[in-house]
Formats: sequence, C-alpha cells, structure tokens
Amino acid sequence: MAVNGGEPTKIMVAINESNTNGYQSPSRSCAEAFEWALKRIVRNNTSGFKILLLHVQLPYDDGLDVDDTIYCSPEDVAYERYRDVIGGLRLLQYFLKKCNDVGVPCEAWLKKGDPKKIICLEAKRVKPDFLVVGRRGLSFLQKLFFGSVSDYCAKHADCPVIVVKRSPSDNPKYNAFFD
Amino acid sequence: MAVNGGEPTKIMVAINESNTNGYQSPSRSCAEAFEWALKRIVRNNTSGFKILLLHVQLPYDDGLDVDDTIYCSPEDVAYERYRDVIGGLRLLQYFLKKCNDVGVPCEAWLKKGDPKKIICLEAKRVKPDFLVVGRRGLSFLQKLFFGSVSDYCAKHADCPVIVVKRSPSDNPKYNAFFD
Repeated sequence: MAVNGGEPTKIMVAINESNTNGYQSPSRSCAEAFEWALKRIVRNNTSGFKILLLHVQLPYDDGLDVDDTIYCSPEDVAYERYRDVIGGLRLLQYFLKKCNDVGVPCEAWLKKGDPKKIICLEAKRVKPDFLVVGRRGLSFLQKLFFGSVSDYCAKHADCPVIVVKRSPSDNPKYNAFFD
Repeated sequence: MAVNGGEPTKIMVAINESNTNGYQSPSRSCAEAFEWALKRIVRNNTSGFKILLLHVQLPYDDGLDVDDTIYCSPEDVAYERYRDVIGGLRLLQYFLKKCNDVGVPCEAWLKKGDPKKIICLEAKRVKPDFLVVGRRGLSFLQKLFFGSVSDYCAKHADCPVIVVKRSPSDNPKYNAFFD
C-alpha cells in the first residue's frame, strides 16, 4: 500500500529579518527552521512538497514623537516605506533561491501588520498542511515584553504548527534581544 | 542540488488508548496524528523516514481506598497489571501493522509513568527529529483538571514538536471527557 502521492504537502514557513543585521540577513531562528524543514521533512522528495514563504513587516513607524520638529517630507516617508518593501522582497528572494537550488516548488509573499496575527490569518486563508516557525529562545522577561510569535502561532493557528527551537549554545553572546 | 538523502528522519509518535473504549481502540486524536504524519510528511518517501511509536501507561492503580475491605489477592493484582501490558502491546501492534502495510520502517515501545513527562524524557533519550502528538481538544476546565499532554510536550520536549489538532466538528457528541 502506497502512502498519499496526490496533491503536494504545503509547508508555510514564517520568515523574518535579523534583528541585529536588519534586511542584510535573515534571522538565524527562521533560517534554521527553513533548513530543518528542507533537510528533515522534504528530503529528496521535492515533488511531494511546496514551500510557502511568508514575511510580515511591522506597519511603518517614522520613529518621531508628536513633539519632534525634525522636518520630514512626504517624499522621505515614501522612500523609507519603499526601502522596507525592497528589503522584505530581498529577504524572500534569499529563500526562494534556496528552494530553486534544491528543486522544490515555492511561492512567497509579503504582508504588513502584527506578525503573529497575520501569520495565523494567512494560515487560515491559504490552508497549508502545516506551519513552520523558528523559536528565538527569548528569556522570561523578553517574552513578557515582546511576546513570542511561535507560542502565539502554536496556540492560535488553524493548521498544525511545528516550532523549531534554536539550541541554547547557538544563542548570540553579544547583547542582542533578538536575532 | 539534492536535499539530505542520509540517515532517515526519525518521527516519534505518542500513542494512547481511547478513553471511552479503552484498549479496544486507539484514541481518535493519536490515530489522526499518526495518519496525518504518514499522509502529509512521509508520503511515498517511505525509505526516508522511521516511525518510533511510544505508548506510556499510567502506573498501576488498584482503585481501592485504604478503608476498602474488598479482598484482592496478589494474583489478582498481578493479573490486572499483566492485562494492562497486553492491552498496551495490542495498541502498539495496531500502528506497527499500519507502518508495515505502508512499508515505512518502525519501532515501538511501552513505558509506565506520567505520559507527558515520560514522552519528554524518551524524546531526550532517543533524539527523534521531531515528535508528533495529537491534541484532544479539551475545554478550559478539562485542561485545568487534567492538563494537556500536547501543551506540555510542545513546551518541554527537546526536539521540535508538531501538534495535530482534531477539528471541533470531529469531537464526540456523547458525554466523554476524553477520547
């Protein structure tokens, strides 16, 4: 008896940028979760899977208080927003290229909003077979202040969720809240 | 570039019996999680995976208070324990047969203790690539009294954990706390 050979299994992978390097590089937790899914689940059965890459950007924040008087033209704001979108697309491109190298079909999209909520909404809309998220290994206090995207998704997403934790030895030694 | 073709991916699946039918049948949540892993992850790449089936039985409880005076011989107790072990092995056999039918390599073992803690300990010892557990869909009050094995494992297991939820429409209509 053969197991399912029909529709490919759709794996949604949540992608985010490094919090120390920005869009120069993906976060280590999401890069590791992505590599893990390719190596341990897709393996060499590339036609049996489809990777759906989702990157959610926080809504644009110009970082100015209402009392700030630094001049900022509408063009400046438009440029900043544009730069963010380009950065997000480049980040997705990094993972799309890896999928193409391996030969696994993929799609990618960019959204704005609260990452944990948008990931769950997109999982509801797109109906992947499961969702892969990396866990950043936040401390109790960091979780209290910033919340954990992986915990929220594991609790609220409609589909099965696989949380890939970073090993503690892999945490950065420098003073960074996130990576 | 081919993805990993080396060591098979080891999937540990937690197995438990139905709480309405006992060892006559597996719980619906664990049977669904097992089927899901075969259909959506293993697919037809049976040589790329190995299924590790773990069933944890609660320590033997004779159900008698200290004030009870019903006579129960040591042979009766031994027989009850023996019956439990046989039931557990039969349960594992049900899943082993399914793995054999499909052609995916498998192993199974039986343990005694608090299921959620033993599952995490065995995951630490055996080092599977990931753990699959079914979620029974307990209500808030049920969770408060009985605890959720899936929540505990997702939080404490050393390896990635995939929690496969039962759809609410699939919950039994009759008055059963578990299934």
